[in-house]
Amino acid sequence: MHLDHATLRTADLEGTRSFLERVLDLRPGYRPPFDFPGYWLYAGDAPIVHLIPGSGAAVGRAGEMLDHVAFRMDDTGDNQNGEAYWAMRAKLEGLAIPYSTMDLPDLGERRLFIRTPPSAGGGAILLELVFREG
Amino acid sequence: MHLDHATLRTADLEGTRSFLERVLDLRPGYRPPFDFPGYWLYAGDAPIVHLIPGSGAAVGRAGEMLDHVAFRMDDTGDNQNGEAYWAMRAKLEGLAIPYSTMDLPDLGERRLFIRTPPSAGGGAILLELVFREG
Repeated sequence: MHLDHATLRTADLEGTRSFLERVLDLRPGYRPPFDFPGYWLYAGDAPIVHLIPGSGAAVGRAGEMLDHVAFRMDDTGDNQNGEAYWAMRAKLEGLAIPYSTMDLPDLGERRLFIRTPPSAGGGAILLELVFREG
Repeated sequence: MHLDHATLRTADLEGTRSFLERVLDLRPGYRPPFDFPGYWLYAGDAPIVHLIPGSGAAVGRAGEMLDHVAFRMDDTGDNQNGEAYWAMRAKLEGLAIPYSTMDLPDLGERRLFIRTPPSAGGGAILLELVFREG
């Protein structure tokens, strides 16, 4: 068993799609003919993020919810010496996207936390990026 | 790039852990020494679900949030003729866990939606189970 996809509910379908395209290189692709708008965003041939419409209202983050999803960024072996990790930090800084860091040296991992763009009147969705070295 | 894990925030760490053990056969395993309680739940050697503490307050489901995460259930090739799908439906019925269905015949997929147990005063977190045939 593995994770298949994560579904983000947002009032800003276009802005969230654009954000995920720019930051994670996800790309819109085939989506079944549902009767509501949205996107399936692909990494390669896998639609790993789905976007569906929401009100954009802020959500109380202490409540019973999915707090975040994490993406494993190093699965093409491009982080032997932290190259992919530092490249992402430079990319985020170039895009003026704030991030926070978490190092887990006992796992050989470094992690970044970012948020999707806040919608009108709304909050933002927490995403984690995981890089493992070696 | 692929999904690494999903983090569920819940007021009922033990009940949610037990639910995910019973329904998805996830198992607690190594977790770094964070300064707050929680679980890392493993499928094989991958910690795909993390549990962290929350208030249990209900969350407005129309807002800007992660709506759900989906698990791909057939990656051991055990659903050639829908065996894994129907076994899960029987299991959920045996456990008296409500579910809803979504068939996507153009993808050769059938899907089930379930919710984690509602905490005291709180809501519940939506999970999707994806089965592909053939």
